[in-house]
Amino acid sequence: MIDKAALEPIPGFPEWSPQEQVAWQGMFDAIRSGFERFGFRPIETPAVERNVILTAKQSGDTTREIYQLGRLNAEEGEADERDFSLHFDLTVPLARYVAQRAGEIAFPFRRYQMQPVWRGERPSAQQGRFRQFYQCDIDIIGDGALAPHYDAEIPAVIQRVFQDLAVGDFRIRINNRKIMSGFFAANGIAPDEVAGLMRSIDKIEKQGVDQFRKEMAGRSATVEQTESILAFFQFRGSLAETLAMLKGTAEKFGHAELNQGVAELTETVTLAENFGLTDERFAIDLGIARGLTYYTGTVYETTLLDAPHLGSVCSGGRYDDLAGHFTNRKLPGVGISIGLTRLFTGLVQMGRIKTDRDTIAPVLVARPLAEETHRYARLAQRLRDAGIATELYLEDKKLGKQFQYASRRGFRVAVIVHMDEIANGTVTLKNLASATQETVTEADFVAAVQKMLAETA
Amino acid sequence: MIDKAALEPIPGFPEWSPQEQVAWQGMFDAIRSGFERFGFRPIETPAVERNVILTAKQSGDTTREIYQLGRLNAEEGEADERDFSLHFDLTVPLARYVAQRAGEIAFPFRRYQMQPVWRGERPSAQQGRFRQFYQCDIDIIGDGALAPHYDAEIPAVIQRVFQDLAVGDFRIRINNRKIMSGFFAANGIAPDEVAGLMRSIDKIEKQGVDQFRKEMAGRSATVEQTESILAFFQFRGSLAETLAMLKGTAEKFGHAELNQGVAELTETVTLAENFGLTDERFAIDLGIARGLTYYTGTVYETTLLDAPHLGSVCSGGRYDDLAGHFTNRKLPGVGISIGLTRLFTGLVQMGRIKTDRDTIAPVLVARPLAEETHRYARLAQRLRDAGIATELYLEDKKLGKQFQYASRRGFRVAVIVHMDEIANGTVTLKNLASATQETVTEADFVAAVQKMLAETA
Repeated sequence: MIDKAALEPIPGFPEWSPQEQVAWQGMFDAIRSGFERFGFRPIETPAVERNVILTAKQSGDTTREIYQLGRLNAEEGEADERDFSLHFDLTVPLARYVAQRAGEIAFPFRRYQMQPVWRGERPSAQQGRFRQFYQCDIDIIGDGALAPHYDAEIPAVIQRVFQDLAVGDFRIRINNRKIMSGFFAANGIAPDEVAGLMRSIDKIEKQGVDQFRKEMAGRSATVEQTESILAFFQFRGSLAETLAMLKGTAEKFGHAELNQGVAELTETVTLAENFGLTDERFAIDLGIARGLTYYTGTVYETTLLDAPHLGSVCSGGRYDDLAGHFTNRKLPGVGISIGLTRLFTGLVQMGRIKTDRDTIAPVLVARPLAEETHRYARLAQRLRDAGIATELYLEDKKLGKQFQYASRRGFRVAVIVHMDEIANGTVTLKNLASATQETVTEADFVAAVQKMLAETA
Repeated sequence: MIDKAALEPIPGFPEWSPQEQVAWQGMFDAIRSGFERFGFRPIETPAVERNVILTAKQSGDTTREIYQLGRLNAEEGEADERDFSLHFDLTVPLARYVAQRAGEIAFPFRRYQMQPVWRGERPSAQQGRFRQFYQCDIDIIGDGALAPHYDAEIPAVIQRVFQDLAVGDFRIRINNRKIMSGFFAANGIAPDEVAGLMRSIDKIEKQGVDQFRKEMAGRSATVEQTESILAFFQFRGSLAETLAMLKGTAEKFGHAELNQGVAELTETVTLAENFGLTDERFAIDLGIARGLTYYTGTVYETTLLDAPHLGSVCSGGRYDDLAGHFTNRKLPGVGISIGLTRLFTGLVQMGRIKTDRDTIAPVLVARPLAEETHRYARLAQRLRDAGIATELYLEDKKLGKQFQYASRRGFRVAVIVHMDEIANGTVTLKNLASATQETVTEADFVAAVQKMLAETA
């Protein structure tokens, strides 16, 4: 027998209980179905890539987090697979996939990809750091160019997915990187000062406006610069109000990049409104920067209103070139990523994941008379043939215990055929939510189960 | 730019083209849906387990195929994860999962698990050997005991899944290990001779009966033993005929284990018939042995009638104890596994995977007038809100090109709103399979699309 300690969970490699897994599967399916609803199609890449692919764009610090393959108990000189490592995100594999298969891909390529990735981090579920975690990504990749319209569909996908995830109210925030850099340039801020300045702006909410003014003075910014930046980034308004303010700001400065950013954001937001986005869930947030070196235009973040500590649960943006290290083709794109493991873990910690369903099937066929097992098998099979997920109770327990089992596990309908039903050619259906029941003819029972399921949905 | 060779596929780590992936996803979903139809529920375990877990039952030869984690560019003395390795099947992780979580699992535990596994094999797609491949497993695990009825549901699951996979005619074959060992014992064959004898029996079909008789003589078997074994394993008949023959054989020998095996198989087959199995797809094959040390009762194999070279595409059986190395609880079970990667690759090689669908969404909203993009966005959104997966065409191409795109990618319905439709408040729907079209009012168009999709399904 193995040491008990060996059965402990491995830190950083999350695993769900059977009840949690039902909830996880529901969320996973909701995301996938939302992606497919918008015409995205799946790809899957192997868990490993060549090291030269994974490290093409990474610095030494990042590559230390990469898990390399080796062989347990390899004999000396035996071939192994040290040239391969587990992927640490889905963007590098996508870039390799598209570069490798450009000939067989029809562009624009709308793909989704929902797979685990691996990183050698110091694990902390509290801080949302894992060594294995799922990413759920969509991207639309153009060949040479990608029209700006695509940027407007992304918030509609996010809205659909988070509505279906049913994790409470959320807010999708959008910005355009060109507005930020154009505005800074128009205000005489040098490009190398932008990163530090963004950090100061991020802290305004916590540290207050006066602290920001002090920091700006320390940077030898003029009062005019400081107040212009403050007014801009402190602006809070509806979509229409913010677009109007941006129009005025662009006209005031007459700066080319700022103008372009405002034009792009205006077009994107207006088209997004036609995809069903409104002020209720959608806002312009001029402070969103995201990865400063990767994104070049539109950027997105998504927050859960009653779980702000989780940070952005769905982020992304527009980039100029997906796979510059792997191909000469220019492949611009726009995409987002949902960190499902982090989101799910956060919801578990908040007690927000319902684990009252201990079954996938909604229907249980009871077995009150052991000698009638063949009959129950035929009934269960009729339901399954009609597409209804059904469990047949096969343990030798009293009927009361069988009902208890059905209620505790969260079945919605129990099918009972006892001596009376056999004598009359009927079937009794028990609605386990309302504890009501009805008796129907055996010929009609499949339709009756379907009806009861529709009523309890 | 990276060396072109780095973009080559990695041998043994299969990856599908976008078109193949659509077909793969369809098969994956069919298997999952079949499993759920019978009340199986998902679990997922991390890609890695502790080495002590993975090697608890394995001999040195097998452990050399295990992929151990390391760190690329680890600094000396830095913590790494060499105590963990990628799982090589889903049975060991299941055993660990159930042993670890016995307290939170309600038994009998019906779980499915569909994940990649990794083995350091010499890759050969031709021979179905991969270094990463999917296993799709179901098991029903009992706590202490598991009624024999469960064995009868498994062939019904296989039948449902392979019908839905639509990979041609198939045959599910069943046997009971107790019949085989009871019959050998009753015929005076020593247990240590069984393995060699089974190999000789397996070769009868290829090498003929005379060669078998020669080998038996070489083993100093009597003519009576040889002819008794031949008659038994050469028997071919319907379910009813085989059960009748087995009844006679059991009565003739009066051997306890043989009797028990025949009784179990008879009960299992009879109940399976009530789950919808018939001679058409279901047969008793007394020659099936499967893993001699693991399975203890019922065993299953499944072959595709027009792809016999793929061997058994779905196999499994009944075992006495799932997790004897990890817990004192006795956990008997019954289960099967589908090697989806091997099956899919075999079908690709046979040209049996249709790759004519280059989209998941069935509906394309065309964009004949670029200035009406907002209108098209609202139309697409109405379809999506009704649950219809829809792509909105956003490239700047002529309408003819848009239709070409729709047909080539395998969309089923195109939605067109040109100047006439705008003037009349109508929408034109084009059935891309029949090249017919109809024009409906804008108010009715969602229902009309649903109807057209139902007709082309």
